[in-house]
Parts: sequence; C-alpha cells; structure tokens
Amino acid sequence: HLKDDQSTHDTSKLNLILFTLTYGALVTQLCKDYENDEEVNKQLDKMGYNIGVRLIEDFLARSSVGRCQDFRETADVIAKVAFKMYLGITPSVTNWSPAGDEFSLILESNPLVDFVELPDNHSTLVYSNLLCGVLRGALEMVQMAVDVKFAQDSLRGDNVTEIRMKFIKRIEENLPAGDE
Amino acid sequence: HLKDDQSTHDTSKLNLILFTLTYGALVTQLCKDYENDEEVNKQLDKMGYNIGVRLIEDFLARSSVGRCQDFRETADVIAKVAFKMYLGITPSVTNWSPAGDEFSLILESNPLVDFVELPDNHSTLVYSNLLCGVLRGALEMVQMAVDVKFAQDSLRGDNVTEIRMKFIKRIEENLPAGDE
Repeated sequence: HLKDDQSTHDTSKLNLILFTLTYGALVTQLCKDYENDEEVNKQLDKMGYNIGVRLIEDFLARSSVGRCQDFRETADVIAKVAFKMYLGITPSVTNWSPAGDEFSLILESNPLVDFVELPDNHSTLVYSNLLCGVLRGALEMVQMAVDVKFAQDSLRGDNVTEIRMKFIKRIEENLPAGDE
Repeated sequence: HLKDDQSTHDTSKLNLILFTLTYGALVTQLCKDYENDEEVNKQLDKMGYNIGVRLIEDFLARSSVGRCQDFRETADVIAKVAFKMYLGITPSVTNWSPAGDEFSLILESNPLVDFVELPDNHSTLVYSNLLCGVLRGALEMVQMAVDVKFAQDSLRGDNVTEIRMKFIKRIEENLPAGDE
C-alpha cells in the first residue's frame, strides 16, 4: 500500500528499525518482570508518561508550534507534526465525538510493531501502550489532561491501529514537571 | 562543537530523541531488575546481540554493501554506513593494532546518552552497552566473530566515547540465526 508519505516514512526508517527492535527488547523485559499483561500495559503507559513530559520541550523547541486554540487544533498538531517528527507517520484524525472532546488517531502502519507477533499467552498485551503515555505526559505539560488508549490494534488482528483520545480538563495550575 | 555532520545529525534527531528516551527507560528498568551493574551490562549486551542478528538483514538490504575484503573495510562500513544509517553519526576509525585485528570507533557524540547522567551508585554501568551487542550479533551473522567493548565513555567522564573491536575469527559454518 503506497501512501503519500511513503518515501518520507522510508527515510525515517533509516534509524527507526533500531528503535523498533530496542522497544521490542523493552516490552519483552517487562513481560518477564510483571505477572500479567495488565501490569505491563500500566508500566508501559507510565514509562511513556515520563518520556512525554521530557519530549514536549524538544517538540515545542523544534516545531515552533504555538498554543492550540482548541482540541481540534491539538489533534491536527499531534497527527501532522508530532507523529511525523518522531515516528515518520501521519495518522488520520477521525471519529470526533459530537461534543468535540474525543477523537481517534488512525495509524495505517505502526513502526513500533514491525517484526512483532504477539504470542498467544499475551492476548491482552497493549504492545504499543508507551505511545499513550507519551501523549498523556506531553499534553499534561501544556496544561491539558487527556485520557489516551488503544481502541484498535493491528497487532491483535484489527485492520488498523486506533488511538482514542479524550479531553478531560484544562489544568489551571502550572505545576513543575516531574516523574509520576 | 559544530562538526561536519552536524546538520545531518540534527535531521536524524527528528526521531532519535524518542529512541534515546525509550532506551533510557530500558536501562532504568534493567537497573531495577538486576542486582549490580555488571549484570545489567551483560543483559544489555545480550539484548543488543539479539537486535544485531535481526538488524543485519535490514542493513544488507538497505546498504547494498557486499562482502568486506578485510577487517579494515569492515571497520569503514560500520563507521561510515551503519552508524550513519541507524544513529546519524559517523565515528572515526583509529588505534589500529599492528596486526590489523583491532581498532577503535571514536564517537564524538553519542545519541544514546543525550539527557543522561549516571547516578553515583552506578559508576560501573556501561550505559550504551547494547551497541556492543548489536555489533557482535550483526557481525556474527556475516561470519565474523568479534569482541566488542567500551574502552572510554563520555558518560563516565572520558573526553570521547571509544568502542574497541577485536577480530577473533572467521566463522566457517553458516549456522542459522537464532536468539542467544
């Protein structure tokens, strides 16, 4: 399936493969460490959160994106700038809730899962859950509390990978960043 | 310190930062899991090995590099093609042993250690040891047994980061690739 950004994606893959394989080593290690998939999912989300709170600085510096006017603009920036910048892909933004407080990012390909097959005994593992944590952590640093989770996952047989994002509230206090 | 490849390095950083932070999460997890630095170093090397045996396929397909005539050519390909491709840097190749069976890769910057400071209680941690395993695993798949280790590490106060590679032997049997 050739897509508009195929060539760019391939360029960025120049080093993404080392990332993909290293991420696989991380998930494998967590599966050894924790008793069940749910605990691994939670751990990945937490690690992602800590990454997100640090990544946002780099993102703001590099993208020169300013404050978003609304959640729709946030969605576009995440899909078209952030995903492009760090994973070389541009998810589509769809499935808006009527209230405009929820949307989905549809990833037609997910660089994190190249070479990956879920073993049968890990059917509830949300392999790429780190990404949810990254989004949650990064947005928290720009005063947005969001809920992020995988709604579909190509690794578990879905046609696409869908990340569902729900706006919870604007955070008023500007608390200093820190590990969760 | 501006270097020749600075601009390329910056481009590749577009997604390397997510890799760097994820790698940090992996090392942190291993430090929780294992009793001492030596065990963590060993684990990183082993993970790297498993990554290397898979990465080599991608490398051969993407680089269209053929069989190297000698260890000097291997050194050049590793520094100028492989490091460039996957980490966006080009180490220099130096300190050849008189017999031509050992050399050093000097990394003036190491993307894996951006944002990293070693805590005092991890003074013997070889933070980037995964790289040694990757090189060892990848070369084993092209029938070269090598010994790879960090001789200097900027993280531990050295001026540069030096990876020392020693040729051990050519592997005659073409065994199928597998996890260590």
